[in-house]
Amino acid sequence: MITGRLLGVGVGPGDPELLTLKALRCLQAVPVVAYVSARGQPSTARQISAPHLQPGQREINIALPMHPSPELADAAYDEGASRIGAELERGRDVAVLCEGDPLLYGSFNQLLKRLAPFYPTEIVPGITSIAAAAAAARRPLAIRTDTLSVLPATLPMEALRARLGQTNAAAILKVGRHLDKVRQVLAALNLLDRAIYVEQVSTAGQRVMPLVDMKEVSAPYFSLILIPPGPDR
Amino acid sequence: MITGRLLGVGVGPGDPELLTLKALRCLQAVPVVAYVSARGQPSTARQISAPHLQPGQREINIALPMHPSPELADAAYDEGASRIGAELERGRDVAVLCEGDPLLYGSFNQLLKRLAPFYPTEIVPGITSIAAAAAAARRPLAIRTDTLSVLPATLPMEALRARLGQTNAAAILKVGRHLDKVRQVLAALNLLDRAIYVEQVSTAGQRVMPLVDMKEVSAPYFSLILIPPGPDR
Repeated sequence: MITGRLLGVGVGPGDPELLTLKALRCLQAVPVVAYVSARGQPSTARQISAPHLQPGQREINIALPMHPSPELADAAYDEGASRIGAELERGRDVAVLCEGDPLLYGSFNQLLKRLAPFYPTEIVPGITSIAAAAAAARRPLAIRTDTLSVLPATLPMEALRARLGQTNAAAILKVGRHLDKVRQVLAALNLLDRAIYVEQVSTAGQRVMPLVDMKEVSAPYFSLILIPPGPDR
Repeated sequence: MITGRLLGVGVGPGDPELLTLKALRCLQAVPVVAYVSARGQPSTARQISAPHLQPGQREINIALPMHPSPELADAAYDEGASRIGAELERGRDVAVLCEGDPLLYGSFNQLLKRLAPFYPTEIVPGITSIAAAAAAARRPLAIRTDTLSVLPATLPMEALRARLGQTNAAAILKVGRHLDKVRQVLAALNLLDRAIYVEQVSTAGQRVMPLVDMKEVSAPYFSLILIPPGPDR
């Protein structure tokens, strides 16, 4: 018996038109879709994919507890991987719906680790929130010899400061409640005036503005800060 | 008279199925497409887009001289921007076809700088060669608190060494004739065993292998090296 394939499918940052033709073909063809959500919350990846899903597709929802310990998160991914594995064993392809790109900070990395050693695996890359944010802001991500640093706002202040101090362009993800810390670091590095704040990119709730004009003390989880290359480049 | 819109359209890394639905809609709707190529060479972005272009669309080819000086490159972009501007003045939308993403090291940045101050501008983000390479290699780009550094192999050796020494995941673009320099830097930083070489990603000529198995001294222009996060993560 031939097993099904594990498909990690990037569905982009929010706009259902930012799926690729390949992702669309996968979503329409598979008998089973899977997605991760916070327990009790809808899955953003499933919401993005909804216009493209087919009647009769089986769905696997991997529900993570809120603020899980590493052990609880591991247990939820183990259980989700086991449910996906059961479908793969029956010869059914399973498409894991992934916001943005499956391999850039995605929970798909957890499923890849658990399942790719045992099942044929294909990954369909997705539009990242970073590329979509730069597009919305109409600003370069990197030019010529720039280095673009992609890093999470969850890093400790000193690590943020060290990494942002050595780059000439950056994208800071998962801003959320770390907004004030990031502001302080950017101010210390004289980067505040260049920073652009982008919230819920490519959705109806999109906001794009200079960070200095963003007055709130906290931001939603789906927000990021771009530091475009300096104006002299 | 209303001017046309400048559209920067990411067409992805090579596979025509890695266009987004939005990019497809743009390509099918515009009266004019534009693209940059090396003089006498076909444009890769146009080749990727070819299955989606429409009969009767006007085409603007901005041909760059081989190895242009900054002055000659500027003159070619000035002239190309002027030809695009003439179409925009006639009220025609112009889609600039961009390999990968328009704002990540793309020549679209040159046209954006020249035209966006004067014309309504929209950008459609694209799948980067980085995301496609990680998908082909089935390896994470970044997990949890990783920093992903994106940088060009064209940097001097010392700059490469400094930047790669401070990151735990990286994508090194535009490898080409800089392959040997990158190898030396990675060896000095004990990163050689983790490095993955990817050539012509998502096309019929795709090659993916551990860098240590890649024996040639030089690589084609469309090649990159991934340093996935370390195995302990």
